[in-house]
Amino acid sequence: MQEVDLNSDLGESFGHFTVGDDQAMLKLVSSANVACGFHGGDALVMHQTVMAAKARGVDVGAHPGFMDLWGFGRRTITGDSPGDLGRIVVYQLGAMQAIARTCGHAMTHVKLHGAMATQAFTDAAMSAAIVAAIRAVDRNLILVCTPHNETERAARQAGLRVACEAFADRNYGENGLTLPRHQPDAVIHDPERAAHRALQMIDEQAIRTQGGVKIPMPIHTLCVHGDNPVGVAIAQKLRQRLTAAGVTIKPISQLSGF
Amino acid sequence: MQEVDLNSDLGESFGHFTVGDDQAMLKLVSSANVACGFHGGDALVMHQTVMAAKARGVDVGAHPGFMDLWGFGRRTITGDSPGDLGRIVVYQLGAMQAIARTCGHAMTHVKLHGAMATQAFTDAAMSAAIVAAIRAVDRNLILVCTPHNETERAARQAGLRVACEAFADRNYGENGLTLPRHQPDAVIHDPERAAHRALQMIDEQAIRTQGGVKIPMPIHTLCVHGDNPVGVAIAQKLRQRLTAAGVTIKPISQLSGF
Amino acid sequence: MQEVDLNSDLGESFGHFTVGDDQAMLKLVSSANVACGFHGGDALVMHQTVMAAKARGVDVGAHPGFMDLWGFGRRTITGDSPGDLGRIVVYQLGAMQAIARTCGHAMTHVKLHGAMATQAFTDAAMSAAIVAAIRAVDRNLILVCTPHNETERAARQAGLRVACEAFADRNYGENGLTLPRHQPDAVIHDPERAAHRALQMIDEQAIRTQGGVKIPMPIHTLCVHGDNPVGVAIAQKLRQRLTAAGVTIKPISQLSGF
Amino acid sequence: MQEVDLNSDLGESFGHFTVGDDQAMLKLVSSANVACGFHGGDALVMHQTVMAAKARGVDVGAHPGFMDLWGFGRRTITGDSPGDLGRIVVYQLGAMQAIARTCGHAMTHVKLHGAMATQAFTDAAMSAAIVAAIRAVDRNLILVCTPHNETERAARQAGLRVACEAFADRNYGENGLTLPRHQPDAVIHDPERAAHRALQMIDEQAIRTQGGVKIPMPIHTLCVHGDNPVGVAIAQKLRQRLTAAGVTIKPISQLSGF
Repeated sequence: MQEVDLNSDLGESFGHFTVGDDQAMLKLVSSANVACGFHGGDALVMHQTVMAAKARGVDVGAHPGFMDLWGFGRRTITGDSPGDLGRIVVYQLGAMQAIARTCGHAMTHVKLHGAMATQAFTDAAMSAAIVAAIRAVDRNLILVCTPHNETERAARQAGLRVACEAFADRNYGENGLTLPRHQPDAVIHDPERAAHRALQMIDEQAIRTQGGVKIPMPIHTLCVHGDNPVGVAIAQKLRQRLTAAGVTIKPISQLSGF
Repeated sequence: MQEVDLNSDLGESFGHFTVGDDQAMLKLVSSANVACGFHGGDALVMHQTVMAAKARGVDVGAHPGFMDLWGFGRRTITGDSPGDLGRIVVYQLGAMQAIARTCGHAMTHVKLHGAMATQAFTDAAMSAAIVAAIRAVDRNLILVCTPHNETERAARQAGLRVACEAFADRNYGENGLTLPRHQPDAVIHDPERAAHRALQMIDEQAIRTQGGVKIPMPIHTLCVHGDNPVGVAIAQKLRQRLTAAGVTIKPISQLSGF
Repeated sequence: MQEVDLNSDLGESFGHFTVGDDQAMLKLVSSANVACGFHGGDALVMHQTVMAAKARGVDVGAHPGFMDLWGFGRRTITGDSPGDLGRIVVYQLGAMQAIARTCGHAMTHVKLHGAMATQAFTDAAMSAAIVAAIRAVDRNLILVCTPHNETERAARQAGLRVACEAFADRNYGENGLTLPRHQPDAVIHDPERAAHRALQMIDEQAIRTQGGVKIPMPIHTLCVHGDNPVGVAIAQKLRQRLTAAGVTIKPISQLSGF
Repeated sequence: MQEVDLNSDLGESFGHFTVGDDQAMLKLVSSANVACGFHGGDALVMHQTVMAAKARGVDVGAHPGFMDLWGFGRRTITGDSPGDLGRIVVYQLGAMQAIARTCGHAMTHVKLHGAMATQAFTDAAMSAAIVAAIRAVDRNLILVCTPHNETERAARQAGLRVACEAFADRNYGENGLTLPRHQPDAVIHDPERAAHRALQMIDEQAIRTQGGVKIPMPIHTLCVHGDNPVGVAIAQKLRQRLTAAGVTIKPISQLSGF
């Protein structure tokens, strides 16, 4: 019997600025990656998100990003040393860990956000520093990560568990990474198509690039974006199709086999 | 034999914006209250401050404040609920705790900053929420606090240890709180006078108000402000005078009797 | 024949954080108060809002607020001098003026936002400083303002034109100011009720407090809130009812009689 | 008789965070480039800086930068379109223009800050958009700029006046741009050496690269950095040596010949 985690980036609202429909998504996913106040999120939103996740048996993890609220952590920023980026990750993980603990829920995983994730994929020194930072905070944290890149390599080398992630609502380039958002067909808006892709990924234990190339990888967790306008619809369709196909949806910390 | 802790608010620099001479102060104090990125400080500054404190055997604590970088956490801000302020404190304590842990140093205490401290002194609900937040993060944390107010009361009630703090470089009003900074003679700039006051406080185990009234309190820790232009000179004089008078200067976590 | 302006606070989005449905509102109102980057808004959003307003013949004004992005400018913040608040207003008006000018559209008016407006209503010194700031930037700017308070008084004294504003979607307390948002029935969500109130206000040239007291004032402009979930529905109903009643809706700068 | 302007980047303090010794620098320079609240500076600091400059007959200009307070505008940030960067410049120039006007002083010039300047030097589209933005705000503004790059080219093409700037306290690479700050000998700390270089530049009407290559350019204005710890000493020595050599120091708007 197959199993998979459904994850979503949630808790990205900031003060009066609301992002996505977190309450709806928390009914559909099994793990939530919670923004930590740098690219989005704040202490109150984090608290609310963790409490709601706990009530639904949804795992929570940290979703750290660059200190770039205006750019939502999606702008490429260079000039910070790997060590400095490590401290920025420690800070965000610590904040999230304390929020989770005071809610009586555990922080189970970490997933890098936006440009921090993208830059780390191809930067070995940055990946090593960030992985060391995660490990220093809690060596039992699971890193949610696209495989076959510097970040996965650094995590494996440091002995950090890696949950391989595929995106149901994004197209992949030939380098095995999601296409930049501004490119045509980078983001998939059709729930049916997203669900079909997800089932194929699980079936093949591989992703398919836009060019049709199959890149094998274990599919531990599928991401659905909450800030995608049709995110809720995609997550509903995904859950329905996965269940119908006999795939069990489980929180990331309850998955076996990694 | 008498003993006292010397504390200072440090790590308040932000990016390229430098506040105070932390390296000089860390040679003179026994405990550092480290800004947590809301009114000042950032992950890098926090890391540097903790590493430097550790190298000198100086205790580190969290110094949380309002999310008010521009106002340096000194502006009165109303409209946040006590519970919300609690989450803001949890967030900052968690970030600081993780930074300290990854530096191999312990976070021993908490001291509220600026307007957050001032508003809490007279607000029982706010004090209760903040004390509950501190306790939820780590029940062994010591609260550094001016005594005889709502915050101390809440801490005692919650079973949190309180280190009573007096300010060597500030004058007190008749309500037992430091005079607002804009009032005449609120801040003491003469090292000799500050040292004289400190010795008298320790000798009498009391503070004196501007009007001369003696308010008894145990003097566990003396604060010297690092952003005061003569902060370093005052700390030097204080350390010299206290030592000459046979008072032992000890980090807050090593004090006995509270 | 009667005439009135319909205004709305728009351009409050910040980076990827979207507030309200500005495009829909711009089809319905005759004047837009554009956030200036302090409580919401940014240079890009301001530019887009002005361009869209210009295309529809909608007047644009500045909507300055406190430097409090997280609190959306709605938290009471004290400790800044009146003069300092004046500089903060000059800065925001200058930014907005330049954006408007480079879009080939004129900045016709100013409306204070949130806590800045509320605090000024009862603070003569603050009102005088802000009015002086507006006047120094451009003495032809129209101040959109609830009447019968310190701000209106200061504006009249300084010779600034005042457009008296009433809120179609807010209830008034006995002091003639809108009820704080957290109070019961402070915000009106029923378009029919809002439209009925608006027509009555125009007919009576007065507002009615929650207690039923009639406070006479010229009704130059009616505000509909864009961040109210039913803001668009209210604006539609208002426009329809006003037109049906023979009231002409005109941009603020084209109104006669003030 | 030769003449030159001495300029410095001032007004970079933010709230309680103080940068440099602006009062001392304003006694020595003839033009001030005032930070506009994005990488540093705020409305109050801008007002104070302009008032102090006016009192000393010092020209003021805008010194816009990226919205990157933490990185002080020095981090490379990509992902914003040229048009968007233009709006960001318009916003900052408008704010500065209004502050200057309400102080009764004129905004005479613009100088790009940090990474915005560096990125524009080699990016024709970005330079064109920023130059268009400056021109749209006020076509009489003088652009202070290192020559021989995309920014100068765009300015000349758009008919904007360019004041060619050389750095007395920075070394130049072979590409004619200042060496990145982290490189050895990038920043000159010896006032004598800085003054010697400045006189040579004026004499030769050229700069010298680190490798000794002479790059001809008109030397309209010399920059001294105020956040350099020895900035004041360098400015003093420069002023003294220039005066002794018969070079007249003039505010940028009073220079002839460009």
